[in-house]
Amino acid sequence: MAQGNAGDRPASAAVLVIGDEILSGRTQDVNTRYIANYLAQIGVDLLEARIVRDDMEAIGEALNALRARYTYVFTTGGIGPTHDDITADAVARAFGVDIGEDPRAIALLSERFSQAELNAARRRMARIPKGAELIFNAISKAPGFWIGNVIVMAGVPMIMQNMMDVVGPRLAAGPPVLVETVEADGVPEGAYAEGLEAIARAHDGVSVGSYPAFTSGGIRNQIVLRCRDAALLSRAAQATRAMIESLSKELAR
Amino acid sequence: MAQGNAGDRPASAAVLVIGDEILSGRTQDVNTRYIANYLAQIGVDLLEARIVRDDMEAIGEALNALRARYTYVFTTGGIGPTHDDITADAVARAFGVDIGEDPRAIALLSERFSQAELNAARRRMARIPKGAELIFNAISKAPGFWIGNVIVMAGVPMIMQNMMDVVGPRLAAGPPVLVETVEADGVPEGAYAEGLEAIARAHDGVSVGSYPAFTSGGIRNQIVLRCRDAALLSRAAQATRAMIESLSKELAR
Repeated sequence: MAQGNAGDRPASAAVLVIGDEILSGRTQDVNTRYIANYLAQIGVDLLEARIVRDDMEAIGEALNALRARYTYVFTTGGIGPTHDDITADAVARAFGVDIGEDPRAIALLSERFSQAELNAARRRMARIPKGAELIFNAISKAPGFWIGNVIVMAGVPMIMQNMMDVVGPRLAAGPPVLVETVEADGVPEGAYAEGLEAIARAHDGVSVGSYPAFTSGGIRNQIVLRCRDAALLSRAAQATRAMIESLSKELAR
Repeated sequence: MAQGNAGDRPASAAVLVIGDEILSGRTQDVNTRYIANYLAQIGVDLLEARIVRDDMEAIGEALNALRARYTYVFTTGGIGPTHDDITADAVARAFGVDIGEDPRAIALLSERFSQAELNAARRRMARIPKGAELIFNAISKAPGFWIGNVIVMAGVPMIMQNMMDVVGPRLAAGPPVLVETVEADGVPEGAYAEGLEAIARAHDGVSVGSYPAFTSGGIRNQIVLRCRDAALLSRAAQATRAMIESLSKELAR
């Protein structure tokens, strides 16, 4: 059973990455892109992402702004056993609900840790806001949780991905966004920009992006077309390919 | 001459990544991390990052929120020649200033393009908000710009990095944030979390983060300590190393 406001419009989403290590440059965030690809495949539109530090105010403010605006908010990071893991407390405060040790979470952690090992720090991982549903993870056993429209996941990519697989089938999926990529090798953006704009205008509903890349082999631009309507997408892609072919011949003269 | 409010507190910054390609999952953003590392080295605190789509409203709203709050806002993406490149127009609108073809930017583009090549699309890259200062780039010649406390750069990493080198020396730099990393191989987070929290409390001003990693070789956690005061940082790092060593011996028993 899907949660979220499954109406006529596709479900929307935001990612909230939590962690000083991303903003200090220590760690390259790869979770946003993984979630982006996951959501595109199930037809949920990722419309925004934010990265905030391990700070109660910063997390709470971003969370409240995003959860008011989008169908889903996916957070990553800050649910481990150390003092800088404050996401669960920040989420509880943002929702105005109590937080405490959750017996269901303690039961999960007990599958991995003996009673002696389950010290105060590890028990922190069982702190879950009241009313939240747990998200199981097979790797470290420490659960994520789902409260309202907010899905709280681990920062370690492998564990986050495991949680995404648990959550994914329950999201309000829609028709996936289909993608066509047109290679524009050797044709500079400035040469096809006007033609591409005309194609974009003539195919309302197709998102048309142009992405330049300069490699040692020269210009390797890509034009990416995205749309939920396969026929419309195909027409736009054909028009784009025809234009690039024609320009390519012209430039080769 | 540095711009920005160089007071007693270190300068702060936000990154605003602009581009559908990041939120669709097509492209991995690497600019945020690059800017994060750059700023850490010159002592500017990166406190937040946002990723928004190629949309006037979304760009404007994020930009206005961030520029009101931080010393600097660095944007990346959306300043090329195609129709989806709308950053300059969105920035002009956010600042409430006019935008038009800038003769200085046309002069720069003329170094690369002949008059015949300088078509309407390429001239788009010379659209600069009134009152902005240009940021030269040696690679594509299309300039970024600096207006108020907002620094607008390209999305192509190589070009963005080139622009950062132009801008960097003029930022209100402060004492760099020094970093010490303590390897905690084989010691689980749950075992050192309580000791680490005590160390963090005893060394006010040191930011202490714990970053778990699970590899095929087992647990390879890292504890990262960050502080502008070298002596204070060193004391905190020594205490951390001593704690990990002691726990490591205990676990080996």
